[in-house]
Amino acid sequence: MSGVEVSAVGEFGLIADLTRSLVMPGPVSVGPGDDAAVFRVEGSSVVSVDALVEGVHFRRDWSSAIDIGRKTVAVSVSDLEAMGADPVALVISLSIPPQLPVSWVRDFATGVRSEAEVAGITLVGGDTTRSRDITIAATVIGQLAGRRPVTRAGARPGDVVAYTGRMGWASAGLAVLGRGFRSPRAAVDAQRCPQVPYGQGVAASLAGATAMIDVSDGLIADLGHICAASGVRIDLVSADLPVDDVVRTVGAATNRNPLDFVLTGGEDHALVACFPVGSIAAGWHVLGRVQAAPEDGDSASPVTVDGAAWATPGGWDHFR
Amino acid sequence: MSGVEVSAVGEFGLIADLTRSLVMPGPVSVGPGDDAAVFRVEGSSVVSVDALVEGVHFRRDWSSAIDIGRKTVAVSVSDLEAMGADPVALVISLSIPPQLPVSWVRDFATGVRSEAEVAGITLVGGDTTRSRDITIAATVIGQLAGRRPVTRAGARPGDVVAYTGRMGWASAGLAVLGRGFRSPRAAVDAQRCPQVPYGQGVAASLAGATAMIDVSDGLIADLGHICAASGVRIDLVSADLPVDDVVRTVGAATNRNPLDFVLTGGEDHALVACFPVGSIAAGWHVLGRVQAAPEDGDSASPVTVDGAAWATPGGWDHFR
Repeated sequence: MSGVEVSAVGEFGLIADLTRSLVMPGPVSVGPGDDAAVFRVEGSSVVSVDALVEGVHFRRDWSSAIDIGRKTVAVSVSDLEAMGADPVALVISLSIPPQLPVSWVRDFATGVRSEAEVAGITLVGGDTTRSRDITIAATVIGQLAGRRPVTRAGARPGDVVAYTGRMGWASAGLAVLGRGFRSPRAAVDAQRCPQVPYGQGVAASLAGATAMIDVSDGLIADLGHICAASGVRIDLVSADLPVDDVVRTVGAATNRNPLDFVLTGGEDHALVACFPVGSIAAGWHVLGRVQAAPEDGDSASPVTVDGAAWATPGGWDHFR
Repeated sequence: MSGVEVSAVGEFGLIADLTRSLVMPGPVSVGPGDDAAVFRVEGSSVVSVDALVEGVHFRRDWSSAIDIGRKTVAVSVSDLEAMGADPVALVISLSIPPQLPVSWVRDFATGVRSEAEVAGITLVGGDTTRSRDITIAATVIGQLAGRRPVTRAGARPGDVVAYTGRMGWASAGLAVLGRGFRSPRAAVDAQRCPQVPYGQGVAASLAGATAMIDVSDGLIADLGHICAASGVRIDLVSADLPVDDVVRTVGAATNRNPLDFVLTGGEDHALVACFPVGSIAAGWHVLGRVQAAPEDGDSASPVTVDGAAWATPGGWDHFR
């Protein structure tokens, strides 16, 4: 029934369709279909919510429903990784226009399931309501299993700053899509759904990370949150910043410094963390160092590159 | 800055404003402001999500921002009550137009906090994004503290069906508001925010409830969910249904049978549960009995009133 609208199957038909083949793993004792889901976590619980709004976070002409389903899970689980938590359970609130094809919702659910499987998280429940624009809110719950959370507040002067994952790809993809192009494909795909370095948040925690964040708003902006929470400065070394071929290509094609994508582009959900010297997690790459904050408390540019403020103001604010 | 728009203070200014004075209780070790919140639950976790969309679930000319904040918490925590869980933690995704006055958001937050205090739940995090219509998704997490969840699936023939809370008030209020009136005030207030019987879900669980649900879609519709999940029928006794004065008044004024509000009106979030005879929770009132499902499996009208199907089709479907 790919041409059928959501209004024709109704709320309960839609939910039945979406949840029919879900399999609940051991820690989940009550899955979708009751007033609430029931599951077990080990140690402290970690929770985060992210919304994706049509026309703000995605466009249906740029991204397939499968892409959007995958991205919904990826960007949400990334916040659990950034705390050093294992993903456990996911609930999704889906607000959609009644005229939306059922096939879109079904493809969205397929994307959610496939990325949830990769991320190691289980969709345990949700809510569907009517709205003008597609609005998705995903809440993820993780567990610490006895570990301490890695917050933004533990960075200490002398720590090294390291990353794992991609940087600049998604914003390069956005620049390409905004100009009406669909290539390089790798950049466009990265914009449609990030490749989150699943499992690396726990790895960083076990290695002794003192502070961590996922790069959703841009490297400079997000490291700025660590600086604010930890009361430190961070200096990045430009020669150590990753400028991947695809980012370089888009930079050349759009006449922009590729480092701009790396330093100010968000949405790749790389993980960046601070580690005591000598205890960096395997596979992570150093790109800077934590420094003491100036005594006068000046925090205009807490994150510098080779000792100087980066010229382009970075970061994303939803209301500006 | 009551006349100031959200766009003028920006995302981070708004979040700082909303979270400034929040106090985190003992089980919460990381509150708002990091990648995710961290808290402890006792026993199994229970999670539910509910969305409230402007123009669908509320109208800004009918409800104040404080009402909507309170209702957001009330309808969400009600799902935890319906599982027999204690509320623990709440996260809210708030999607709003940039032109919205900051004062509206502040009042919404005030409503959230005041109802959260009554419900015994803590706001531990959230997300704010831009959207055309105000769209709120609230996820609540509760704990079972060693108890078994009370699902919809445990009702047994011979059980009594009992309720606590209000029925018909909110839908009577909707009927009044829809006609352009603002009284009776008690009905209108009930539509703006339900009075959820907090704590009664756990009480029902401890008394031995076999199945439970909160009345969000209508008594007949919601008991129908219990019938479907438990494989039973339920017969209600009309003389035992509560028809409160305010519902009777609105029935007379709108020329409707007040029992229609009680049987098919949702949004009051009363709790209804099935109990073995003799073990009903204190303060709950019997209104029917669980019967065996017919052998032919006919489930057209699993919930009857005095042995017959109720004439008005009940329940709410978001997409029809």
